[in-house]
Amino acid sequence: MSADTKTRASAFVDEKRLAERLAAMARIGATEKGGVNRQALSKEDAAAQQLLIRWGETLGLKPSIDAIGNLFLRLEGADPNAAPVLSGSHLDTQPTGGKFDGVYGVLAALEAVQAIVASGVRPRASIDVVAWMNEEGSRFAPGMMGSAVFAGERRLDTVLAVTDESGVSVADALMQVRSCLRDVAARALDERAAAYVEAHIEQGPHLEREGLTIGVVTGIQGKRTFKVRVDGEAAHAGTSTRAERKDALLAAIAMVQALAEALHDAQDIVKFTVGRFDVKPSAPSVVPSAVDFSIDLRHPDSQALRALGDKVQPICEAHAGVCAVRVTELSSAMSLEFPALMRSVIRDAAARLNLAHREILSTAGHDARYLHAVCPSGMIFVPSHRGLTHCEAEFTTSADLANGAKVLADVLEELAS
Amino acid sequence: MSADTKTRASAFVDEKRLAERLAAMARIGATEKGGVNRQALSKEDAAAQQLLIRWGETLGLKPSIDAIGNLFLRLEGADPNAAPVLSGSHLDTQPTGGKFDGVYGVLAALEAVQAIVASGVRPRASIDVVAWMNEEGSRFAPGMMGSAVFAGERRLDTVLAVTDESGVSVADALMQVRSCLRDVAARALDERAAAYVEAHIEQGPHLEREGLTIGVVTGIQGKRTFKVRVDGEAAHAGTSTRAERKDALLAAIAMVQALAEALHDAQDIVKFTVGRFDVKPSAPSVVPSAVDFSIDLRHPDSQALRALGDKVQPICEAHAGVCAVRVTELSSAMSLEFPALMRSVIRDAAARLNLAHREILSTAGHDARYLHAVCPSGMIFVPSHRGLTHCEAEFTTSADLANGAKVLADVLEELAS
Repeated sequence: MSADTKTRASAFVDEKRLAERLAAMARIGATEKGGVNRQALSKEDAAAQQLLIRWGETLGLKPSIDAIGNLFLRLEGADPNAAPVLSGSHLDTQPTGGKFDGVYGVLAALEAVQAIVASGVRPRASIDVVAWMNEEGSRFAPGMMGSAVFAGERRLDTVLAVTDESGVSVADALMQVRSCLRDVAARALDERAAAYVEAHIEQGPHLEREGLTIGVVTGIQGKRTFKVRVDGEAAHAGTSTRAERKDALLAAIAMVQALAEALHDAQDIVKFTVGRFDVKPSAPSVVPSAVDFSIDLRHPDSQALRALGDKVQPICEAHAGVCAVRVTELSSAMSLEFPALMRSVIRDAAARLNLAHREILSTAGHDARYLHAVCPSGMIFVPSHRGLTHCEAEFTTSADLANGAKVLADVLEELAS
Repeated sequence: MSADTKTRASAFVDEKRLAERLAAMARIGATEKGGVNRQALSKEDAAAQQLLIRWGETLGLKPSIDAIGNLFLRLEGADPNAAPVLSGSHLDTQPTGGKFDGVYGVLAALEAVQAIVASGVRPRASIDVVAWMNEEGSRFAPGMMGSAVFAGERRLDTVLAVTDESGVSVADALMQVRSCLRDVAARALDERAAAYVEAHIEQGPHLEREGLTIGVVTGIQGKRTFKVRVDGEAAHAGTSTRAERKDALLAAIAMVQALAEALHDAQDIVKFTVGRFDVKPSAPSVVPSAVDFSIDLRHPDSQALRALGDKVQPICEAHAGVCAVRVTELSSAMSLEFPALMRSVIRDAAARLNLAHREILSTAGHDARYLHAVCPSGMIFVPSHRGLTHCEAEFTTSADLANGAKVLADVLEELAS
């Protein structure tokens, strides 16, 4: 058979099998309202990794885990000297997350590898299905820890020392997970990678709205995150006068309101979110002594992002009133563009499969951000119903999920050939 | 000796003993920053009650506890048919509370009773030192539970069924406390009371600022409390556009800001406090799906309080935007005035002791609010440094604390004679 007429791997993608595996994963950490709560390095995360390893073993994939807890399942290639092609995403979720964010990318990669095996072609390079440790960052902040350490963007020891709200360190939690994965080989952190492809739900409404199936991701929107600490003074709600008060809540509210106004753009491109707002001592009859709030600011244009983010500190300071404020920038990632070659491989695969597609910017961050720094990387999006994500209502049809896996299968087959 | 020349009980009040007892109580639930966290019906509360009972026993006071957990220590009077005079306050504190709010009123009553015993006069009526259950309302909401049930203002079964944040009911927590107080007799809820006097720190700056020692409390400022629930929709901080979002936090912030503006008075009499503001799911990269916040609104003029409180719901609804809002009024207590007779007994005692004093309105709520409904009640204030209260920095000098106890001793002696 010539390359043009032979049966490609995509023909062996099984929509039902993929849907069933997603459903099985969704039962691990299932919430009452149909979502998933599977925090990084939790019991649930360990159970999900065990299940993934079992599925991989039935295909002959060899599991390995690196020092920061990234899990790899290898389909051995014909050439032991060729650097592997990586594909995956993450198994952890937001506290009230959905059934698809992250886990889809891992199971689409597994499905693609299974399809490649079924097609009877042995790839030249190995293909590693990967589950990156702690993408969401909701238990251990900030997120994308596993891919950041893999890419050398963050130090292993620094990340291992991060603790969650109850004081448990990444190192300790990792040890717990490892104790559930006894027979998994250790993998060196500095292994090379030939390329990386990540499938993911869009997490936005555009593909669905335009009736498209595949998004060829052009790049990732930049993001700056901050934490803001406002210090006032606790006082009695009945006795202290307004003039005497140092009400941290009213000061914090004035800051958030002023930020929302200053960052407001008529085109609705700026993304400004205050997701955490923790009040102390949090009693109905006590004037708040302190507020800690988070800021998540994104813009596809790096220059605009830089300018907008630089407004945060002066605006908070201008609205502190009688309270004190401390603004700390936690992360700053400018917008990035994936290599044209990766985008064309994905676009061509979608076109061959007659799947309606277009280029699209990822407004969410992904592990592919860090992989982009170490090897040619790309991303494949499938539609999200109403764009709902990071919530229990997250939904994508089985057909769309399978189509994404088909594109991924053909892309991996080509990259590993 | 005639009534005018005999030695009054106040002469036997011991400043050092009172200060040492307050310090011993402050060790139960002590916080790192010098405050106290002693939640109602907690281990710490039970330990404080045990200590109080032990001190009472050395004076021959008989302990009893009623069905809602109010603890009484009785100095038996000469006339078994006379209704007892009650005096006390509460042992529970705010989460980051101080060393004096509540516990001072209980220990001042114990000190007064000890002084009466030392003076050698046996009162006609019994005097009960009382520690009301859960005044603060920070663990089980709303507060003043014990005095409310005692006064018949709230039903016993309703209050027993209230649960804390971890789902523990008042009934269960009470059983735990009782198991630590095995030898304490049960007391009927419907026992009569001849009068009630409560000593308390001012929790405002006025006495200190004016160089006065005693506040003769004229009455208690009215208060309305609300809880507000704002429902939006969780969404991804990077992908959802402003137009698509139902950001519960931004809606809640707009409500609080609008309320602060609408309730603003140039004279600074209105007390408006948002002490709790709980965000869900509380993750940096998730648009908040819901916010629950509290409103504590006070004004000394009942008519003004009524009018201001009636603005809460329409203002919240006007600023809900694309979110849903539900406003629930939790409590509504109008301003009250203590009987002139009680005020004059307190004023005369202060005058006889040559203590600088004036009449003062209590802007904070107290158990005396509920006792006022069942017997002649009154309150004695001592200065609070800078008016700081409901916080770890709460402070009153030992001399002021002893002077308050002296006034209380003479008042109780007179009321029980």
